Amino acid sequence: MAGFFDNFFGTLGVVIDSWGWADKAASRIVVNKLVRSTRSRPHPWSTASDYTSWKGLTDRTFLARQLPAADLGDLPDLAAVAQLFERPEGMQRLSKKSTCLFPAFAQYLTDGFLRTDPVDKRRTSSNHEIDLCALYGRTESQTDALRLKAEDAGSKGRLKSQDLNGEEYPLYHFLPDSTDVDPQFAALDRPLGTSVPQHEGSPAVDFGSLFAIGGDRANSTPFTSMMNTLLLREHNRIAGELEQRNPGWDDERVFQTARNIMIALYIKIVIEQYINHITPAPFSLEADPSVAWDAEWNRPNWMTVEFSLLYRWHSLMPDVIEWSDRQIPLMSFSLDNRPLIEVGLAAAFEAAARQPAADLGAFNTGAALMRVEVGAVHQGRTNRLASYNDYRVEYGLDRVEQFSDISSDPAVEAKLRELYGSVDKVEFYPGLFAEDLVDKSPLPNLLMIMVGVDAFSQALTNPLLSKHVFNAQTFTQWGLDLIMETRSVGDILQRQGAMTDGSTIVMTQPGWRYGWYRP
Amino acid sequence: MAGFFDNFFGTLGVVIDSWGWADKAASRIVVNKLVRSTRSRPHPWSTASDYTSWKGLTDRTFLARQLPAADLGDLPDLAAVAQLFERPEGMQRLSKKSTCLFPAFAQYLTDGFLRTDPVDKRRTSSNHEIDLCALYGRTESQTDALRLKAEDAGSKGRLKSQDLNGEEYPLYHFLPDSTDVDPQFAALDRPLGTSVPQHEGSPAVDFGSLFAIGGDRANSTPFTSMMNTLLLREHNRIAGELEQRNPGWDDERVFQTARNIMIALYIKIVIEQYINHITPAPFSLEADPSVAWDAEWNRPNWMTVEFSLLYRWHSLMPDVIEWSDRQIPLMSFSLDNRPLIEVGLAAAFEAAARQPAADLGAFNTGAALMRVEVGAVHQGRTNRLASYNDYRVEYGLDRVEQFSDISSDPAVEAKLRELYGSVDKVEFYPGLFAEDLVDKSPLPNLLMIMVGVDAFSQALTNPLLSKHVFNAQTFTQWGLDLIMETRSVGDILQRQGAMTDGSTIVMTQPGWRYGWYRP
Repeated sequence: MAGFFDNFFGTLGVVIDSWGWADKAASRIVVNKLVRSTRSRPHPWSTASDYTSWKGLTDRTFLARQLPAADLGDLPDLAAVAQLFERPEGMQRLSKKSTCLFPAFAQYLTDGFLRTDPVDKRRTSSNHEIDLCALYGRTESQTDALRLKAEDAGSKGRLKSQDLNGEEYPLYHFLPDSTDVDPQFAALDRPLGTSVPQHEGSPAVDFGSLFAIGGDRANSTPFTSMMNTLLLREHNRIAGELEQRNPGWDDERVFQTARNIMIALYIKIVIEQYINHITPAPFSLEADPSVAWDAEWNRPNWMTVEFSLLYRWHSLMPDVIEWSDRQIPLMSFSLDNRPLIEVGLAAAFEAAARQPAADLGAFNTGAALMRVEVGAVHQGRTNRLASYNDYRVEYGLDRVEQFSDISSDPAVEAKLRELYGSVDKVEFYPGLFAEDLVDKSPLPNLLMIMVGVDAFSQALTNPLLSKHVFNAQTFTQWGLDLIMETRSVGDILQRQGAMTDGSTIVMTQPGWRYGWYRP
Repeated sequence: MAGFFDNFFGTLGVVIDSWGWADKAASRIVVNKLVRSTRSRPHPWSTASDYTSWKGLTDRTFLARQLPAADLGDLPDLAAVAQLFERPEGMQRLSKKSTCLFPAFAQYLTDGFLRTDPVDKRRTSSNHEIDLCALYGRTESQTDALRLKAEDAGSKGRLKSQDLNGEEYPLYHFLPDSTDVDPQFAALDRPLGTSVPQHEGSPAVDFGSLFAIGGDRANSTPFTSMMNTLLLREHNRIAGELEQRNPGWDDERVFQTARNIMIALYIKIVIEQYINHITPAPFSLEADPSVAWDAEWNRPNWMTVEFSLLYRWHSLMPDVIEWSDRQIPLMSFSLDNRPLIEVGLAAAFEAAARQPAADLGAFNTGAALMRVEVGAVHQGRTNRLASYNDYRVEYGLDRVEQFSDISSDPAVEAKLRELYGSVDKVEFYPGLFAEDLVDKSPLPNLLMIMVGVDAFSQALTNPLLSKHVFNAQTFTQWGLDLIMETRSVGDILQRQGAMTDGSTIVMTQPGWRYGWYRP
């Protein structure tokens, strides 16, 4: 089936050279074409009401909607839909393109702004920005709890940290041998999944190794903790540089300027490493803030119900994590930072970058994640999302007419037919993940378009990237240079001295070939 | 001195016809040229810190800054600066263009979004939108307190009101013969100036006649109460129409849709009656939402310290208000709604529209308002605003070189020289108001430009006016037609049946002539 990107790059391939100098112009074309494939913000609807209201247009604790709430009609049982996702025992499909750094990065990133309320699925605690809240907290009181006071430290602008085995990590969230929160961290959100007593069937929690950090989901796995630890070290390293280069600055200015640099630098990696891993584009997309400066789609960010749901990429996780020194079954790879602390940060990233992720899609969600997978299907119903086909139209694609238009896999086709009878009845979430992957991308087509629209229209609109803010006055010239020269997670590890060659820390497997256009 | 508008309209006069068909195109040109005369949002600075920080870019309880905080140097005593504003006894200068409906409208409008914290002048309680919060409250709990519950009323979507002398008014804020707030209104902000015991020297308060409304400043004078009463009646009238036309709607939908219509309709009057009164343009500006749809200046609203300060138009108020049935000295024209209730809404509007306002400018602030005038000068220092000349440059004007460039009045020139010595030392606020009025406008030049920039760049960006929201689905077709046919305060009074000819309710005096272009 000819998808948006297939068509698009088919045409574009003719005009784009392969030497790289046209990357900036090509990026601009791709970003604008992608974002304009659907309606831009402000959205007329939100989860506040089924019609447009001032409350719906202004109360950002509700989620916006790309399409209005739909009448759902008869739907198959959740247990039956679950079968579309279940990975058969011992039959995981591994990705030919992605390493486990890809899901690690994706989870840490999206947990920062896709923050649906666990109880009321209409609400969100999102700040609607890429603000590194997993590192800094969502609120000022959380940030304060995470900061080292200059008068205690003799150094300025730092986040609290501790030395473990000669490496720097966040402090611990809980008191030793206890499930009680360290009082200095009372303002933080309690890590999700650590309620006491624990829910029946929940994975075991190693309270003693959970870190005191901004994000209530960033202790989820050693992968997300690894991402957060990398960024904590980079914040403190940058603060040290700023302190040394600007002797007149106080604690507050060093902290705030380090944070400015960190957020911009992180967005740069999001686009230049992560989005470039996703896209099948025959050239590298560049993080060029000016693309958004005059764009008519540059409107206040507001996370949608659709975006909150489509980013549940459970099937990317393999059955077993090949850790540096051991194998960890997926079921045990959660709420326990001991594996990270024991091997250290560089070894953890090397493990993530060495191991293939699993393929996103039908029949490939590990047993450990089936409960949350079914929860996502259920949430699509709670939020009364329109059908898969309606969303195709909303994003400029043709309506599919038969199940084979969705998947070329006869087993997926048969399961969809059994569940829904008619293609027009296929639900949003199951439809997204039932699709074939796009050639040269780790994502299926509609999902890739939707991710792209939101990635660009909400990352490039960050206030730190705006026309009169993205400059040396905001970051210092040293900071601006640092942002511009940072392109990957490996760049950060290398300059922290954790490894001599950061280029091995890849989301794209070394053997992967893009084809004629990337020799 | 050739100002922005002088030059601009000098050129534009050549291409604009006087028959009106080009109003829409001309409006688009004026709006864009005006808004582009200075830096657009997001602003790099706010009152949160003197440098760019994530807190400053996101915490909207601080005020944004057009120019960064300045070093103030030596400044004249406040008491001396006060002399620049003081209206000599019996020497008020009355406006040849404006009636008192102009300051009445301006005060009610701006108190809705220019809401500097009375104690901490860096902070604001503004929602940063034209949201009619004086009518509906700033928060959901305030809105709830002001709404009539359908189950009590037998009618849907209404605001609470009472009948006084056969006319509809809001309920009273305080319990009878008491300074205690009626418990049903505990969520509302207490009207400013009604603290008990009262501050020494404060004007007397008639607690018994103050209304329970959204705005803590909307009981300030019978003029602001008159504006709010008009809009309360219109809300309830529109709710009644919606209820009748949409029998299936519940209380909530009737209320929210009436509110949608009210906010859009109010913005239409802001531009088509109020801004057109201010502008010296040789044609009528139109409230055309589409001007902002693709504009690169359409960025999230954020009130600035400069905007909060420049809108203190104290000198517009004459010494004595010629009320319908009596004369009220300015000193007594506050926190007392009895004059309004006694004569009724139509007579109050007629009084406002019949009486000339005073001229804005130096030596013309009434004694009753000198305390707040001096407070404004002081606030300019607290907020460390850059100089008058620096702001001229920021808005595309030439730096003035001598005092006579600011004012052609020798007394003003002499007072400025005595206070500041050098033109470069003239402060922002005193400089703004010391300028000559622009020919055919009630405002001086820099002030007019700054008001215009903020008026258009923050009114047309309202979410209700946005591309995918400004339509019949949001307002109903009946509501959209009502918005489009409303051009003035008088239109509302007339359709409420308060008078047979609303065209007498004018901001511009009937004898006023625009000149060759408006025959």
